[in-house]
Amino acid sequence: MVIAKKFVINKYFEGEPKRSDLSLVEEEIPELEDGEFLIEAEYLSVDPYMWPYVYHVPLGSTMIGSQIGKIIQTKNSKFRVGEYIFANVGWRTHTVVNEDDGGVFEQTPYIMPDIEDLPRSLGLGTLGLTGNAAYFGLVEICFPNSGETLVVSGAGGAVGSHAGQVGKMLGMTVIGITGSDAKCKWIKEELGFDHAINYKTQDVAAVLKEIAPNKIDCYFDNVGGEISTIVLSQMNLLGRVALCGCISSYDGDPKILPKGTNIQPLILSAQLKVEGFLAMRWMNRWAEGFDQNLEWIRQNKIKYHETVTEGFENMFDAFIGMLQGNSMGKAVVKV
Amino acid sequence: MVIAKKFVINKYFEGEPKRSDLSLVEEEIPELEDGEFLIEAEYLSVDPYMWPYVYHVPLGSTMIGSQIGKIIQTKNSKFRVGEYIFANVGWRTHTVVNEDDGGVFEQTPYIMPDIEDLPRSLGLGTLGLTGNAAYFGLVEICFPNSGETLVVSGAGGAVGSHAGQVGKMLGMTVIGITGSDAKCKWIKEELGFDHAINYKTQDVAAVLKEIAPNKIDCYFDNVGGEISTIVLSQMNLLGRVALCGCISSYDGDPKILPKGTNIQPLILSAQLKVEGFLAMRWMNRWAEGFDQNLEWIRQNKIKYHETVTEGFENMFDAFIGMLQGNSMGKAVVKV
Repeated sequence: MVIAKKFVINKYFEGEPKRSDLSLVEEEIPELEDGEFLIEAEYLSVDPYMWPYVYHVPLGSTMIGSQIGKIIQTKNSKFRVGEYIFANVGWRTHTVVNEDDGGVFEQTPYIMPDIEDLPRSLGLGTLGLTGNAAYFGLVEICFPNSGETLVVSGAGGAVGSHAGQVGKMLGMTVIGITGSDAKCKWIKEELGFDHAINYKTQDVAAVLKEIAPNKIDCYFDNVGGEISTIVLSQMNLLGRVALCGCISSYDGDPKILPKGTNIQPLILSAQLKVEGFLAMRWMNRWAEGFDQNLEWIRQNKIKYHETVTEGFENMFDAFIGMLQGNSMGKAVVKV
Repeated sequence: MVIAKKFVINKYFEGEPKRSDLSLVEEEIPELEDGEFLIEAEYLSVDPYMWPYVYHVPLGSTMIGSQIGKIIQTKNSKFRVGEYIFANVGWRTHTVVNEDDGGVFEQTPYIMPDIEDLPRSLGLGTLGLTGNAAYFGLVEICFPNSGETLVVSGAGGAVGSHAGQVGKMLGMTVIGITGSDAKCKWIKEELGFDHAINYKTQDVAAVLKEIAPNKIDCYFDNVGGEISTIVLSQMNLLGRVALCGCISSYDGDPKILPKGTNIQPLILSAQLKVEGFLAMRWMNRWAEGFDQNLEWIRQNKIKYHETVTEGFENMFDAFIGMLQGNSMGKAVVKV
């Protein structure tokens, strides 16, 4: 008999998620039916989207999220014991999976390709959601050109650090905005960003004016809010904004949005294009992103960093730490 | 000797434009030099863009704007006496024009095609800036499809009333938001909009929910601000927003933008594309827009309304009346 641990949503987040909003409970795993297989989580992802998207499932549901798990039992010939799969089954140690289970984004399980010496956790980040968000978002939404200036907010995070490196490969001047000196140092010295700004200690508007005298052409936005207002106000005519996240505005009931500067006058005067996107939009090109990012890792053109928290019971700590900006690169939990 | 009257910018607008911000002065017109020609204004345009764009010219300049004028003297063989031209020369009765004079949008003068029985003032509206903003903005930014739902704000204005009619021709369900019952009646009964909402007397969010149960696919936005927040929050996945104006946010120094709801969470969750544009972007296709709109007028598919103020000295009244929503359709001044 297999006993699963899982986190259940007790209460929708009000403001920043609280430990008591989720409960860790145990559950007995039933016998498999035809077509099902049982996976044991190896790595679980914690991502900013979980904050706003929790409202998409009913109270009492398992907390949303994806994992890399090992198949330990199967009654489905396409999914064999010993294989590792990516699955959107939430915060659970053991899960009975059906090949149609897609979770909140309707992304069904797939077998992780063999990536040899690389950690399988990359399937949750650089070779998964965040890598594809960075790759497709920059290329398909920002229409980047060599010689242009790209600003990335949340640049010390999984998506931002990746998007900036893609920008460098495309010949752009890349400026990253982060919330710590350590992240600034990492993106500049390790990842090759041209400039890094710590928004907590520097005057973002003044520094941008100085380091981007020809203004900004593309903005890969992970934060929204007033940092974005500053960036938008320094953009060139016909600038492009890929809106990947707005962590500054997830605070509270999504029906009661926070107030800030009206950005329409900025969008209008510079004739900007601001497009929100989820990486899932390119679900039918998922493998293309995976293969491209894997090739870039092998060529040492994309460097990654993972902040790994040990222990399934520490999921909440990993989640809140990531939201508070304490992690660098991709935050994952190793069971 | 020709004496011109002109309005000069004394003071940048602070909040809503005040009469004292402009001065009406007289000026003696000098002898023409080679290449120049002298025009006498017949119709002048007043448009919302003049409010924010006044900051683009130095204090003491002639107030910005365009006009249809008759050539009364010439030293340029391409521009003959008796012809009518469109020119961006500001609020002036008589002007020495050089064929390179483009004004704040760098749109150089052109000879008005003969439109026979139609009023030449259309060259400032339906067959000019506002008609082309509506036509290109809807088609090129909103990517409209038959069967989709289009919301137009500022729907009783020159651009909005035109954009909604183009939407109808394309097979869309069209909802107009305006600020008076008279405009609601006009766009619904005369122009064929499916629905009209008076935002001053109706609950826009509740009415939209009722009349657009399948949500909104395209939004042609002339106003920005909280009306737009309501519309954005009821849009479908991958909705498109053509941001043509944000009259609600022109109030005051453009460097101190008004506050409102953060729209990034709305753009992100529905993966919207919000694009600001000026019709001038399609300067090289100007004649295409002119010809298309003229054909539609002839076919009675585009109906127009002009609010005509008589007398050059009443330019300011026409301008402020248009800004306050007192005009219907295109506001022009007949000298």
